[in-house]
Amino acid sequence: MAGAPVTPVDAFYVRNHGAVPAADAATFRLRVDGLVDRPLELSLDELRDGRFAEHEVLATLQCAGNRRADFIAVRDIPGEAPWGPGATGTAAWRGVALADVLAAAAPRAEATDVAFVGADMAADADPPQRFAGSIPRRKAERREVLLAWEMNGAPLSGVHGAPLRVVVPGWIGARSVKWLERIELRAQPSDGYFQATAYRLLAPGETPAPGRGVELGEVAVNSDVLVPDDGARVPAGTVEISGYAFAGGERSVVRVDVSTDGGRHFAEAELLDDLGRWAWRLWRARVELAPGEHEIVARAWDSAAATQPESAAAVWNPKGYVNNAWARVRVVATR
Amino acid sequence: MAGAPVTPVDAFYVRNHGAVPAADAATFRLRVDGLVDRPLELSLDELRDGRFAEHEVLATLQCAGNRRADFIAVRDIPGEAPWGPGATGTAAWRGVALADVLAAAAPRAEATDVAFVGADMAADADPPQRFAGSIPRRKAERREVLLAWEMNGAPLSGVHGAPLRVVVPGWIGARSVKWLERIELRAQPSDGYFQATAYRLLAPGETPAPGRGVELGEVAVNSDVLVPDDGARVPAGTVEISGYAFAGGERSVVRVDVSTDGGRHFAEAELLDDLGRWAWRLWRARVELAPGEHEIVARAWDSAAATQPESAAAVWNPKGYVNNAWARVRVVATR
Repeated sequence: MAGAPVTPVDAFYVRNHGAVPAADAATFRLRVDGLVDRPLELSLDELRDGRFAEHEVLATLQCAGNRRADFIAVRDIPGEAPWGPGATGTAAWRGVALADVLAAAAPRAEATDVAFVGADMAADADPPQRFAGSIPRRKAERREVLLAWEMNGAPLSGVHGAPLRVVVPGWIGARSVKWLERIELRAQPSDGYFQATAYRLLAPGETPAPGRGVELGEVAVNSDVLVPDDGARVPAGTVEISGYAFAGGERSVVRVDVSTDGGRHFAEAELLDDLGRWAWRLWRARVELAPGEHEIVARAWDSAAATQPESAAAVWNPKGYVNNAWARVRVVATR
Repeated sequence: MAGAPVTPVDAFYVRNHGAVPAADAATFRLRVDGLVDRPLELSLDELRDGRFAEHEVLATLQCAGNRRADFIAVRDIPGEAPWGPGATGTAAWRGVALADVLAAAAPRAEATDVAFVGADMAADADPPQRFAGSIPRRKAERREVLLAWEMNGAPLSGVHGAPLRVVVPGWIGARSVKWLERIELRAQPSDGYFQATAYRLLAPGETPAPGRGVELGEVAVNSDVLVPDDGARVPAGTVEISGYAFAGGERSVVRVDVSTDGGRHFAEAELLDDLGRWAWRLWRARVELAPGEHEIVARAWDSAAATQPESAAAVWNPKGYVNNAWARVRVVATR
């Protein structure tokens, strides 16, 4: 199912930092406050009664820890989940544009950042605190950023943030805050643990501390091979290889290359259906494999003609974020 | 001068495709037509008389052929200029927002692309034609895109596009069309030679043809070492290394790494003044060099945590565009 254009809800990755909070749709209230002239408190019905236009966006979310397993193979990263390519999924999200709700709250000129606070207590934060994160106001006011209550045509399930979550297409999954309770307009990014300390790019040798390293935000161009599996035995001859590519940010995937000799020579893969600006691009290629061992490599190019770095070792970082090195799977072709 | 925060006009790279056209500011007219409800014809005085607000943007322009020399070292690229790091410059551009001029022309809903046509005849086009290129309307309507008549406080010089040029911050230099005569609102990108055939990313082995390869647009994260020169002899001991980094697109530079062992280990460089969202970031680092030969490597990271690919060979392409592989200079440290 990992290779379906739209990921079924029960196959969609789940990365939470605490227990799923109890939700009562009837008493739920979303607060919008901070640097605004008209603070709001909205029930779910008020969000959905037509005051704000409802719309749907097909968007890929990707955890910043996606493909961390290939980093761990280079050097261990204790305490972090060894994600393969599966911390990425694509769904149809339905809700209202965050921009419209913000406009109703009349943000002040000095509000440059929009923070989201969930109802979930994160025990792995220091100190324990509600999960939170922020995005710049200029992204928050784009039409694709949603306050969503539906995923693939069904109400959000508990693990995916019921009754209401943020969806920030093109940004690391951590900014698509689930169980959303509060939106705070601020003059600086969130100072919560998950933005000031975690989800930051550290240099090798650095340890996490508030403000240290670089805040993650947009997703960088990435791809992975989904079929065949790493280590698979396949019949020699024509072998179909397939996977996904995701450009992230405001960009789109323009090309995917596949190599069967470890990256010395590449051929272009076929890009499958274009699912729109905010979704991954699935691809496939047919290659000829002689009997024996082969390293298959894939890499994507985005609309800025940026492509993936070659080796995971060269982009390894202490928390194992943003592994967008070339995808590599080793297969044995059998007679 | 290459390392100054703002590049002096006479040190700013020049890449034109034909002779500099004669300009007569008095008779100059800019036409805005195509998919608009109110076609315009504007004199320079009408552009500058206050009807449109004047503003200045500090922006880096980079030729898509920047750093092609390192590609040519991998495999020859006949007929293309062997640019080093110098096809990149930063200037203060003054003019009016393209967005305001477009608004005055009332573009129709179906206008998705904005094409710019210069007065220069490009003899190297097939067939020979005026230089032209387009950007998507969503970029064209952002405030940073200018119709500029001033560069670093002085009227544009002839080679830089007098009397009027486009400046598209974050995009390949070819879209910042000089000697601008016409803006055409379209329902598809420019079909001119410099967009449909040239300035496209081809796969190794492909030859240029209309529509072949991938249209270039935003610039990908890049950097280069400006001091010391490749091949320089420097006294062993503490050596200062400096250069520029440019994120391109809507992104910013968040980190620059420097290595003295060919990229096995990196240390962070110091980022110099932040010149704003559309400009390069200069950087410097002090390293210790023992007597002998060293390969110094630099790489930048952008705000999506994307970094440069390792080797020019792996991103080589037939027209030699977008070399954003790690910057490498070889030096000999002498006792």
